Amino acid sequence: MDAHFSDARLCIVGLGLMGGSLGMALKAHQVCRTVSGADSQAAVLRQAIALEAVDEATTDVARAVRRADIVVLATPVRTIARLIAEIGSSLQPDTLLMDLGSTKTAIVEAMARLPSHVQAVGGHPMCGKEKAGIAAADPDLYKGAVFCLTPLERTRPEALARAEALVRAIGAHPLVVDCQRHDAVVAATSHLPYLMATALTATAADLAAKDDLVWQVVASGFRDTSRLAGSDVDMMLDILLTNQKNVAGRAREAAQKLLEMAAAIDTGNEEILRGFLAQTQQAWRGVYP
Amino acid sequence: MDAHFSDARLCIVGLGLMGGSLGMALKAHQVCRTVSGADSQAAVLRQAIALEAVDEATTDVARAVRRADIVVLATPVRTIARLIAEIGSSLQPDTLLMDLGSTKTAIVEAMARLPSHVQAVGGHPMCGKEKAGIAAADPDLYKGAVFCLTPLERTRPEALARAEALVRAIGAHPLVVDCQRHDAVVAATSHLPYLMATALTATAADLAAKDDLVWQVVASGFRDTSRLAGSDVDMMLDILLTNQKNVAGRAREAAQKLLEMAAAIDTGNEEILRGFLAQTQQAWRGVYP
Repeated sequence: MDAHFSDARLCIVGLGLMGGSLGMALKAHQVCRTVSGADSQAAVLRQAIALEAVDEATTDVARAVRRADIVVLATPVRTIARLIAEIGSSLQPDTLLMDLGSTKTAIVEAMARLPSHVQAVGGHPMCGKEKAGIAAADPDLYKGAVFCLTPLERTRPEALARAEALVRAIGAHPLVVDCQRHDAVVAATSHLPYLMATALTATAADLAAKDDLVWQVVASGFRDTSRLAGSDVDMMLDILLTNQKNVAGRAREAAQKLLEMAAAIDTGNEEILRGFLAQTQQAWRGVYP
Repeated sequence: MDAHFSDARLCIVGLGLMGGSLGMALKAHQVCRTVSGADSQAAVLRQAIALEAVDEATTDVARAVRRADIVVLATPVRTIARLIAEIGSSLQPDTLLMDLGSTKTAIVEAMARLPSHVQAVGGHPMCGKEKAGIAAADPDLYKGAVFCLTPLERTRPEALARAEALVRAIGAHPLVVDCQRHDAVVAATSHLPYLMATALTATAADLAAKDDLVWQVVASGFRDTSRLAGSDVDMMLDILLTNQKNVAGRAREAAQKLLEMAAAIDTGNEEILRGFLAQTQQAWRGVYP
């Protein structure tokens, strides 16, 4: 299909929601010559083949990546960082190594320590679901999504161009950005929403322990605002703990805003409250007109 | 259609999203003999008639309610409380007065001061949208929603039964509950989600003022978690300021949980963090299996 990849053997390591969806998208668009997969769980490999997310699959990561021209790491973030260190010596010259992790600084640092014959670009597609695992995989998951790419200082222009073309081939929009700037921004747009949903759910759950009416009256507003609290805990832990300063900072700011609203509500300070709510509504409607 | 209402003249005061949707639902199911509407804005009345949300409409509330067997107040909460005091003397004997306000204690208190010939039941349908106004009205808005009913001590059983039948006639599920218990519970399930969405949006907006990348990378997680920040400010102010103690209390609890997560993230206390996230994920999945 795409001149860049029609001959490429691509290998996805980690066949969960994101890796499985990537395989399905690549195969649906016939982007590469072959799509292989590696995962630690044999049952997942069988499911990936049954869903036609990959052409072939193995539990042997080193063997899988050795035969690939492009390797995409799609595990939780801290496993990605570990895998980068482990597989470096197995990669062929000029292999393009990418990943799908939601934080980029730790991963780009690990990529910078790769043997010099490997080209690497960090990646973060701005899409997902609160359900984990290949059973939730969807060939259209990446369609229309912004896909951040964080090159290393040493990444060659043609390797970055190849990564951008791969992103476009699955219907996503590449956005090249520095890894530290990426992590600062997504702390507010991706990681804080998870903490907000979790704090909301935990607060309601505390009340539900005393009054069983709570879960009977939840409506679409609660469902949407709390949805991310159902996210995979292993995945989120890795994200939060590789973006500590940014995430903790934004969580404290949001807590402060809650406390300020609580004070205005308590004291009936309508003018302050109205000003804050109206200003925030305007900001929201600017993003979602 | 329904033996309870085939002869009834129903009047909706306030033709916004909720009142307009109620009129559309009543007319779609041919529940009443006539559905009339009152609103302070002539343009809204014209739109309500064009959308077939009401058979007739007027800006004269006292005149509209005088000829009705059932009156449903569908304005913001503090206007509902004021209207109850104003229209009491205009209502016919045995008129059933209801409302759609999201807090119930202040409204039930106002209803308790009505002339003794009026029967009243507070109401709160657990549905809505972040868009306000009759342009967003939807005849299916109430379909499948839980609809809380908060009777007064003096509400007669047949009046409550009539309110329950009306709720069923538009496809919603009546749930009879004490007004104070209602307000305590919805503070966590309906009002706190709005504050969480607002705190999230405001935190991201602060960062967006410094880095324009912010709004370029927002994805479905941010959109859903922040959606309620687009809610009508007048409506929300009335809700927050008629449920002060409950809402402020839950907001402070949620802020505390955010601060605890921030501390665990900062210090890398993985065990504490994992325990809290996993427990909350389990609670969420219990509600949304």
